[in-house]
Amino acid sequence: MRFAIYGYGNLGRGVENAINEDDEIQLVGIFTRRNPEQVKSAYGTPVYSVDALERFANEIDVMINCGGSRSDLPVTTPKLASRYNVVDSFDTHTDVPAHFAAVDEAARSATKLALISAGWDPGLFSIARVYGAAVLRNAEICTLWGPGVSQGHSEAVRGVPGVRYAASYTVPKKDAETKFFADPRSDHSAEATHRRVVYFVAEEKADREKIENCIVTMPAYFLGYETEVHFVEKDEFLCEHTGFPHAGKVLCASDETGDRTEFRLTLPSNPAFTGRVLTAFAKAVFRLAREGRVGAITPLDISPSALLGRGETLKYI
Amino acid sequence: MRFAIYGYGNLGRGVENAINEDDEIQLVGIFTRRNPEQVKSAYGTPVYSVDALERFANEIDVMINCGGSRSDLPVTTPKLASRYNVVDSFDTHTDVPAHFAAVDEAARSATKLALISAGWDPGLFSIARVYGAAVLRNAEICTLWGPGVSQGHSEAVRGVPGVRYAASYTVPKKDAETKFFADPRSDHSAEATHRRVVYFVAEEKADREKIENCIVTMPAYFLGYETEVHFVEKDEFLCEHTGFPHAGKVLCASDETGDRTEFRLTLPSNPAFTGRVLTAFAKAVFRLAREGRVGAITPLDISPSALLGRGETLKYI
Repeated sequence: MRFAIYGYGNLGRGVENAINEDDEIQLVGIFTRRNPEQVKSAYGTPVYSVDALERFANEIDVMINCGGSRSDLPVTTPKLASRYNVVDSFDTHTDVPAHFAAVDEAARSATKLALISAGWDPGLFSIARVYGAAVLRNAEICTLWGPGVSQGHSEAVRGVPGVRYAASYTVPKKDAETKFFADPRSDHSAEATHRRVVYFVAEEKADREKIENCIVTMPAYFLGYETEVHFVEKDEFLCEHTGFPHAGKVLCASDETGDRTEFRLTLPSNPAFTGRVLTAFAKAVFRLAREGRVGAITPLDISPSALLGRGETLKYI
Repeated sequence: MRFAIYGYGNLGRGVENAINEDDEIQLVGIFTRRNPEQVKSAYGTPVYSVDALERFANEIDVMINCGGSRSDLPVTTPKLASRYNVVDSFDTHTDVPAHFAAVDEAARSATKLALISAGWDPGLFSIARVYGAAVLRNAEICTLWGPGVSQGHSEAVRGVPGVRYAASYTVPKKDAETKFFADPRSDHSAEATHRRVVYFVAEEKADREKIENCIVTMPAYFLGYETEVHFVEKDEFLCEHTGFPHAGKVLCASDETGDRTEFRLTLPSNPAFTGRVLTAFAKAVFRLAREGRVGAITPLDISPSALLGRGETLKYI
């Protein structure tokens, strides 16, 4: 299987690491919009400019698009799907249908297969929600994220004037799980079940109180959430808050029958784990494309046996 | 969707209950080898002799075979697959490949689709093991069953001379989970991680000590396991030990990366829950058969979106 990586940030490095752990995959190269001479791969993988892509059209079985969801993937995944089988980790839940439609059209015209929204949420958590909904009577579903670093929220804090470094943790409230199982119909919205904990390093002479106020009142990110803000010194920040640990769980319960399903994840490194998930799903895309599947799909459209190959799978039955 | 039930024990009643909860399914009938006049359905479903099956060949979209794995399903599922799309809950893990081959041949000749080994283990737990194996680096996988009633072990105890009623519980050892996560490569075989707790009512004048000794030394069932045996009075037994609660979890861990996935189930009634799982998978079989899939499959060959229908699925992404 010949894979390539498009975009080389934290996620791109995670995918490179996962591919290097896997004897079945050959990594053709990393494609970047930066000057390729200034991008150093940790494994000595060749790095090319995206302008060189045309040359590789027949040498790449699956392209793994490691760009960001906000402005990058909506443009690049349809474009890549018109030449390659492709996998992305598009994670803006509400925009999935629009992204799906754009990618589907591009992939179908090119008779390619394109998997969008691989990762753990959307991805493994979406799968856990569907199994819960399918097997429980009138399932109530509660997703709890964390404790872990939220990249989007950390970035939002870094955008506040006077902030030098910042990390925003999403933390499920202590009693959220107990409360949900005690009464699955109680409020289990994200706001009701999570709090946010922010650590930041201020620029010299910055007004810390003003920064704190700016954070806790930020709409769409912190407003409406129980938010705790901590000012820390640079050394402490660099030592304690620069990793990407994460965790989460999907809890499903039937109030009527008492049945429960629970799926839990613990990840010391979010981009390393997400890289493994993308790589596993890219292998499924390779297998399904070979069987003639085309168009856009999500992880929900992939059978477990396609992830490992059908022969390998029966030993887990 | 027109479903029918073949065999009407605890599981058959569970499936009937699940079908009655579902507006998309019409239950054509229950087929029994007993005298149908002596079989009463809890929902007034028509009960027919298996001899009447021929008459319904064109009226049943999916037949749910609710027979037992030991001697029943290996004979009846291939037979049914030569006339109907069929679902069974074959759960003798080591014999799955042979059963798969027999069912596959029958189903292919008849261009029918046959799903074997649906339920929670094999079934949902097999799925959890495959996802764990696919996304973790060198995954170690530990399955813990219980606390819950094991039907096979309860039956084995009932076979001991002098035993009137018996229930055998499978219970994960208290430290099994902690030990596994502390060292995923430590021994996590079924014997190392479980104990068995038996409650029995003796016949009058039976030698209780002899019974106890007979239980704990029973090969393949209790020998090699930490086993606790309790003699109880009939009233206590009927009040406390005649339900079918169960539970279990699939724990997956990578010793190298520290990543973990966990899937947990809690079921107040094992046959009611298994009935719901079989019904959910039967709906997927209906959808896939309509798309032209034929032959034998397992729950590992079914995508999450086939369980709910693709349109319904995207809201869980």
